[in-house]
Amino acid sequence: MDEFGLIEKYLAPLAIGHKGALSLLDDAAIISSRKDYELIITKDAIAEGVHFLPNTSPELIAKKLLRTNLSDIAAMGGVPKYYLIAAMLTGAIDEKWIGRFSKSLGEEQKIFGIHLIGGDTIKHSGPLSFSLTMIGEVKKGAALKRSGAKPGDGIYVSGTIGDGALGLKILRGEIKAGKAAEKYLAGRYHIPQPRMDLGLRLAGIASACMDISDGLIADLGHICTVSKVSAIIEKEKIPLSPAVKTILKAAPKFWDSIFSGGDDYELLFTVPPEKEKNLRMLAGKSGIGITKIGNITKKISEKVAILEKNRAFQLKNTGYSHF
Amino acid sequence: MDEFGLIEKYLAPLAIGHKGALSLLDDAAIISSRKDYELIITKDAIAEGVHFLPNTSPELIAKKLLRTNLSDIAAMGGVPKYYLIAAMLTGAIDEKWIGRFSKSLGEEQKIFGIHLIGGDTIKHSGPLSFSLTMIGEVKKGAALKRSGAKPGDGIYVSGTIGDGALGLKILRGEIKAGKAAEKYLAGRYHIPQPRMDLGLRLAGIASACMDISDGLIADLGHICTVSKVSAIIEKEKIPLSPAVKTILKAAPKFWDSIFSGGDDYELLFTVPPEKEKNLRMLAGKSGIGITKIGNITKKISEKVAILEKNRAFQLKNTGYSHF
Repeated sequence: MDEFGLIEKYLAPLAIGHKGALSLLDDAAIISSRKDYELIITKDAIAEGVHFLPNTSPELIAKKLLRTNLSDIAAMGGVPKYYLIAAMLTGAIDEKWIGRFSKSLGEEQKIFGIHLIGGDTIKHSGPLSFSLTMIGEVKKGAALKRSGAKPGDGIYVSGTIGDGALGLKILRGEIKAGKAAEKYLAGRYHIPQPRMDLGLRLAGIASACMDISDGLIADLGHICTVSKVSAIIEKEKIPLSPAVKTILKAAPKFWDSIFSGGDDYELLFTVPPEKEKNLRMLAGKSGIGITKIGNITKKISEKVAILEKNRAFQLKNTGYSHF
Repeated sequence: MDEFGLIEKYLAPLAIGHKGALSLLDDAAIISSRKDYELIITKDAIAEGVHFLPNTSPELIAKKLLRTNLSDIAAMGGVPKYYLIAAMLTGAIDEKWIGRFSKSLGEEQKIFGIHLIGGDTIKHSGPLSFSLTMIGEVKKGAALKRSGAKPGDGIYVSGTIGDGALGLKILRGEIKAGKAAEKYLAGRYHIPQPRMDLGLRLAGIASACMDISDGLIADLGHICTVSKVSAIIEKEKIPLSPAVKTILKAAPKFWDSIFSGGDDYELLFTVPPEKEKNLRMLAGKSGIGITKIGNITKKISEKVAILEKNRAFQLKNTGYSHF
């Protein structure tokens, strides 16, 4: 089956929900921003062996590809709308694979209310790789950015931290943790939960926001750089899943991965003191744990300082770079 | 130099022209469509060894990457505005390469009035590949599509056809044509000229439009499929450059490449009889040759029929697929 046949059979059905996708038959798709709204747009690339393990199923690749980009939209406080996919396939990818991949995209579309509107499919010698462009909508001027953190603001994270990094170690066979914990952590690595609702609700409350993809310390460092501040966080306050707690109890050396491992896709955000009441009200509604882990300070020598029982805690690695 | 250093030094300067790019420091960029306008968005992927030859210079890759996507915007009658780049680099790419690539992007930005607003940079085992997302603007409802061709419409192309395909053959050493002709054709392959002005002016005149990237016959076939019509074109009317004419005179076998080779990035469009007068007026203004090569008919057994001296001409290959 040639490229056009594949598009017609597997991808065009994913585009029927948006008329401006022109059934994927044209040179470009048509979109527009509604009155009083803006569009936000993000683009990522992932490759086998770098961002996902060899022989990862098409379903898991589809989910991770969409969800990591959805997480960027969540981090800006947006509602996701459309996406374009560039699939750089290899000889190992057959029609059955494409069928499973597309079916999974379709299931995700229903969950997140998004539509495929364009893209490209090429074949090269590998590795299997993809680029995804995700477009969301946000009220004019309401987009959450990394640049607004001020001294005195509280630092918060959603969910639990370190699950993705330890999940990857489990998938690589570097940690054993018992069947249930292993399944939970591997799932957290494979299928991120973009915090769409929380991101939306943080508009007008958070002074800065981003999603954790490179690791807690590296990403908090990004907020500090852009906001021209520093951060002090307390090790004891980092929210951990039961599975991670068990692993750390047996092997404290994995604490480094909690701080510097990527792939959590939780939201990391700062809130001014006068808005912390609003945040507590919101926390109940969103149904996701929100934990204060520290405070923004004026710029000090360290970008991000970690305290353990009020003393400085030193990391070996400060951040994970996919590059 | 790490990913963030590279972005700050080479890519962020390309984003200063659009405030919503947030200096490439955030999770996503902000864009919006002006009142009475829509946005058009397209995404392509290219890989070394498939879409460009190994050891192609960073300057030529930058130009081709942008221009092939600009051509899609031209084909829809849009004005290009923003782009996002996903660069999938290999170990062979050093900082000097990135510097030259970025400088070339910057020069192209000035020519086409566009701004970098986001993207991603990853490193994998190769081949060197890129995905580009281009966003343009078009008056509401004015986007040119592939779907409007009607029986009786004239079929037109801009510029000359087959230069890109024979340019590639020259670069591969499959054809010799003398220094000047070789330089001209290789240039046509390497540096497409997206027909931005012509695309804009065709609004309200062309009934269907697209750019020629897969080859004249394949792409005309796309218009026919989407418009549910057939096309009859005359071989003698295909506009050819002097360099191509010389090659064909010596080796008529290369006619197949004229019809089925890709990479011309000229516009292919249809015009209703009552609008042909407007087209002639426009042709003078746009400064680009426009040639009528045939007519749309109601659906017949062949999607695209080629006549040579009023008799059917048979092609060996009907289209080039990069896939």
